Amino acid sequence: MSNQLVSIAVIGAGRIGRIHAENIATRISGARLAAVADVNLNSAREVGARFQVPIIASDCRNILRDPSIQAVAICSSSETHAQLIEDASAAGKHIFCEKPIDLKIERIEKALAAVQKAGVKLQIGFNRRFDPTFARAREFVASGRVGEVHLVRITSRDPAPPPLEYVKQSGGIFLDMAIHDFDMARFLTGSEVVEIFATGAALVDPNLERLGDVDTCVTTLRLQNGAMVMIDNSRRAVYGYDQRAEVFGTRGMIEVGNPVPDAHRHCDETGTHSAKLQTFFIDRYQEAYRAEMQSFVDCVRFDRPPAVSGMDGLMATTIGLAAGSSIAVNRPVTLNPSELRGVT
Amino acid sequence: MSNQLVSIAVIGAGRIGRIHAENIATRISGARLAAVADVNLNSAREVGARFQVPIIASDCRNILRDPSIQAVAICSSSETHAQLIEDASAAGKHIFCEKPIDLKIERIEKALAAVQKAGVKLQIGFNRRFDPTFARAREFVASGRVGEVHLVRITSRDPAPPPLEYVKQSGGIFLDMAIHDFDMARFLTGSEVVEIFATGAALVDPNLERLGDVDTCVTTLRLQNGAMVMIDNSRRAVYGYDQRAEVFGTRGMIEVGNPVPDAHRHCDETGTHSAKLQTFFIDRYQEAYRAEMQSFVDCVRFDRPPAVSGMDGLMATTIGLAAGSSIAVNRPVTLNPSELRGVT
Amino acid sequence: MSNQLVSIAVIGAGRIGRIHAENIATRISGARLAAVADVNLNSAREVGARFQVPIIASDCRNILRDPSIQAVAICSSSETHAQLIEDASAAGKHIFCEKPIDLKIERIEKALAAVQKAGVKLQIGFNRRFDPTFARAREFVASGRVGEVHLVRITSRDPAPPPLEYVKQSGGIFLDMAIHDFDMARFLTGSEVVEIFATGAALVDPNLERLGDVDTCVTTLRLQNGAMVMIDNSRRAVYGYDQRAEVFGTRGMIEVGNPVPDAHRHCDETGTHSAKLQTFFIDRYQEAYRAEMQSFVDCVRFDRPPAVSGMDGLMATTIGLAAGSSIAVNRPVTLNPSELRGVT
Amino acid sequence: MSNQLVSIAVIGAGRIGRIHAENIATRISGARLAAVADVNLNSAREVGARFQVPIIASDCRNILRDPSIQAVAICSSSETHAQLIEDASAAGKHIFCEKPIDLKIERIEKALAAVQKAGVKLQIGFNRRFDPTFARAREFVASGRVGEVHLVRITSRDPAPPPLEYVKQSGGIFLDMAIHDFDMARFLTGSEVVEIFATGAALVDPNLERLGDVDTCVTTLRLQNGAMVMIDNSRRAVYGYDQRAEVFGTRGMIEVGNPVPDAHRHCDETGTHSAKLQTFFIDRYQEAYRAEMQSFVDCVRFDRPPAVSGMDGLMATTIGLAAGSSIAVNRPVTLNPSELRGVT
Repeated sequence: MSNQLVSIAVIGAGRIGRIHAENIATRISGARLAAVADVNLNSAREVGARFQVPIIASDCRNILRDPSIQAVAICSSSETHAQLIEDASAAGKHIFCEKPIDLKIERIEKALAAVQKAGVKLQIGFNRRFDPTFARAREFVASGRVGEVHLVRITSRDPAPPPLEYVKQSGGIFLDMAIHDFDMARFLTGSEVVEIFATGAALVDPNLERLGDVDTCVTTLRLQNGAMVMIDNSRRAVYGYDQRAEVFGTRGMIEVGNPVPDAHRHCDETGTHSAKLQTFFIDRYQEAYRAEMQSFVDCVRFDRPPAVSGMDGLMATTIGLAAGSSIAVNRPVTLNPSELRGVT
Repeated sequence: MSNQLVSIAVIGAGRIGRIHAENIATRISGARLAAVADVNLNSAREVGARFQVPIIASDCRNILRDPSIQAVAICSSSETHAQLIEDASAAGKHIFCEKPIDLKIERIEKALAAVQKAGVKLQIGFNRRFDPTFARAREFVASGRVGEVHLVRITSRDPAPPPLEYVKQSGGIFLDMAIHDFDMARFLTGSEVVEIFATGAALVDPNLERLGDVDTCVTTLRLQNGAMVMIDNSRRAVYGYDQRAEVFGTRGMIEVGNPVPDAHRHCDETGTHSAKLQTFFIDRYQEAYRAEMQSFVDCVRFDRPPAVSGMDGLMATTIGLAAGSSIAVNRPVTLNPSELRGVT
Repeated sequence: MSNQLVSIAVIGAGRIGRIHAENIATRISGARLAAVADVNLNSAREVGARFQVPIIASDCRNILRDPSIQAVAICSSSETHAQLIEDASAAGKHIFCEKPIDLKIERIEKALAAVQKAGVKLQIGFNRRFDPTFARAREFVASGRVGEVHLVRITSRDPAPPPLEYVKQSGGIFLDMAIHDFDMARFLTGSEVVEIFATGAALVDPNLERLGDVDTCVTTLRLQNGAMVMIDNSRRAVYGYDQRAEVFGTRGMIEVGNPVPDAHRHCDETGTHSAKLQTFFIDRYQEAYRAEMQSFVDCVRFDRPPAVSGMDGLMATTIGLAAGSSIAVNRPVTLNPSELRGVT
Repeated sequence: MSNQLVSIAVIGAGRIGRIHAENIATRISGARLAAVADVNLNSAREVGARFQVPIIASDCRNILRDPSIQAVAICSSSETHAQLIEDASAAGKHIFCEKPIDLKIERIEKALAAVQKAGVKLQIGFNRRFDPTFARAREFVASGRVGEVHLVRITSRDPAPPPLEYVKQSGGIFLDMAIHDFDMARFLTGSEVVEIFATGAALVDPNLERLGDVDTCVTTLRLQNGAMVMIDNSRRAVYGYDQRAEVFGTRGMIEVGNPVPDAHRHCDETGTHSAKLQTFFIDRYQEAYRAEMQSFVDCVRFDRPPAVSGMDGLMATTIGLAAGSSIAVNRPVTLNPSELRGVT
């Protein structure tokens, strides 16, 4: 297949679907945007018109039936992901799926079984792995330049909390937001989580408490390789989108800093000043979104294993659920050995 | 015209033409890539195929005759620029033209007269003005946050010298490379150059000396507002593409630093390390190329004056020629009052 | 007393005693170095000769009896601190005492009772509070510029572990090393610790395990004001002495970075490089040692409360002991309400 | 002499004399502060009392006669330097002398002849050579890590201009302020200046123009090794004391940045902020003052050539005078070959 373009259908033409549609249409080599589907047909049409997409649909089943489509990018709302993975698998389509696969382990396992049975590729949208700086940090660790890993610090703070309505169905901070950080811990270290301790509070918006959720939290992970990971999350950082990490080991330390929108420095009578951090995740991870889709297209074209597997999706959700348990009982929670599988 | 897309023809499908073609096709709102021309028809076809461009030509006169084309982006070799500006003006097309307009003042003035007579827009490709950090610095100065400007420092160093063959017809370091810095001095300060002193040597490649050129130089400018500007240029910085500036005034200082390809920091037994600078001008100024074309398209759509005028092109070349004179006689050269016109 | 010099006796002429002796002799205004005592008389003599100190003693009781001495700086080995505090109190001397007061709460309380009864000043040597950057961070928090505090991160890593012999009697990593960080958490936030969860391992030197100690650990604190604190410690950072902190709140964030020994930046074909961090705590905290002694002298001269009280010493040890309990039982430990007293 | 302390007399107990006195008394190994002289006897007494100095004098001739004194540190007003160098030489004392030796070349040469005849050591107070970062940059260049030097940039800006009365007798900006930068150009490169072009204006205080002086200037130097140096000076940088340099060569670049008073970083809704630069030269060069005096003491004790020679003092003044000529005639000035001697 490597000489032909991979024809991709984007399912879901919301915010994230549009990013993937634009990337596939204009920045990904070896792929074409063949179809866009959205239950809101107007949304699909709008995206279709912008990129001259041949097939527009409100019902994605029509697309799954189309033999000219080789792959789908599932960008619809979270609760549809697992079913769509199963349907696309049954139709023999390769699958890129936004996180999370589902909020329930059993549902995820059922979807992954369908993928395995069909023998299609499945890549999960943990886009941060493809951010240039996070990817660089992983390279440093993987090449041994940090030595044996002892400590990992991950900071992940959003500029502003999502609407309460969204929070209600999101699975809470651990499954919606910290899930990226749990994946990052596994990605940076190449090791599995064996124990989780989480603590948190609704400091930004006390209303969250009624929903059984928190907006500020600290999670400690112990890994199979002996390393310890600290993660801190906040739903509101007034100074912008703050996403940092640090891996400390026997040979040194690698830090992932925040990129800046511009490289100015201003000195005046009060001190030295530089640019405010980015405030929108789409700006922050623009290159990561492009690179993850290129990676998916390449894994289809060259028949390689996907860079982020279904198992990665399963593990992140598993850790997220365990973090929820830990905060409920206020003590560390051990992951079942049967839940520990190798990172791919 | 603001509701319709501006149909643009790219003339010249070399390295820089391809950048503009891709931007117009995929990243510029309000424009479409309507035609590509190149004396090498295969080059034009290649670009055309990639972006599904309706008109492909080897002779751009066909394009200039086409009434469906509203604007041209002149990206062909430098010696063709002035004539193409005149031809496009005669055909009533708006013009984006890469620098330089020409190496001779008279030729530039003739081209600008044609533009004026035709009443079309002309924007010159001083892309650095659109780089986020340089643009930010200009905002700081223009808004008075730096106060009255006293000193400006501009560093501009390329990773590697161009081939000698290129240098021979380029007009030398002042007209080929430092011309961007002369424009930057005017842009950052909003003031005109009144005196120039340049000194330099062929330190990177002594062969340049036979061509009457240098590869390392230092230029001091005095401006009408009393400020002094220092510019240093080198054709070879082994650590990457180094483009910085600094404006110092009565209320403070604004520095333009180099952006980094990623935001990692690595600490080991030898010290602290971060990413190497970018090594390719197209990576360095990717956003600037996009933004300058958007600015051009907007000036056509909304009938605004172009952000970089033909006069700006003329002034930069004038300063470049004066720098060449200064180095030849080893003393400061005063710009003729008649050459001093307001920065637009 | 404000017009006279405070006559201070340094008790213990080891590494830390010499720092204080030199500072008192040469850099502290309002004080004089009146005496040096050390059980090793030669050590005392050496220091005495260097700074022309009138009184040299091997038995500090002679000094405590001397009416010309107003204050003592206790720099002898840790297990002597509590007794010396009591003796000095009984003798009516003001006291600066290196941390820890003792490893046992009851012993500390007995010593503090003696201080209170005698009405002398007691300042504990939590020198980091006087480091310019940590002090600056506290100012930012105290002045409200960070807003309500939600998260605190403290990193504290030593360049190399102490000898096993030292570790054996040090009280372990929480009472010997992290105690500074526990104090820093209280200092930066002005709030008390209510719950502690610690986890750790002997990753640097597995021999520590036999001693029941760890060399790498992560501690989570919950504070009375609702904020959460993460602390990470390592006994060996090959890249130098790494002491950072960060306070995050509703109005922003203040970071305490590592100072650098020099401000160079080196760019070459491999990237950008800067100086290695300091590798010796005495270099790192040179100014902090000076400033804490000046603060002590000023509190004596101007009859002010000491900047770091005996209660601060007690609380840090209390938290350290709780951290040890937490790691032993692998669950969070709550501090008894009776242990919660206001930070001074 | 290496086992004995060098007995030093400080001549001149003003601001700079006090710094040297304090350093000699408390921070320099191998030296003792044996005497302090000042025409204002009270000043001498004040310093003497603080450091228990045995000899206090208003007339330094008494000190020069004293056989117990081995060296003098000349810190009196500039116009007395040359005569004191001759007197101290005649008395067989080693000499540390603040810059400048004198404002006239002939007077300097006469003083240096006296030093040479007497065979005493003479070190000039170009303290910046001993600043940790500038010294580090010189090491990088000397060790070849920057390669062959092509370009040097030096920025030197004071927080505020001195009083007009001081300026009148200072020799002007080139001999008073930029003289440090001329020395730095020679120090960093190890090469001599062959041509100078200076331009400047009274932008901070127009009154300076009447005195024939400027407060803002740009100087270009050409060196014997082919490299070019740019220096910019301003008498008023509202953001603090700004002293930077950069050496660019065939293998890379080394930058000397400004040290910061503390290492905090503050993020809020408006951006990222860090500490204001130091605003007082004595804070900025505290360590440099200490290190230069230690270097002088060591050269006396171990009979080594001084790190900054009389010839270095002569050359810096020569360049400063040439810069003054250049600005007067507005063209480059060539240094006489006879003025070019090797840098020691």
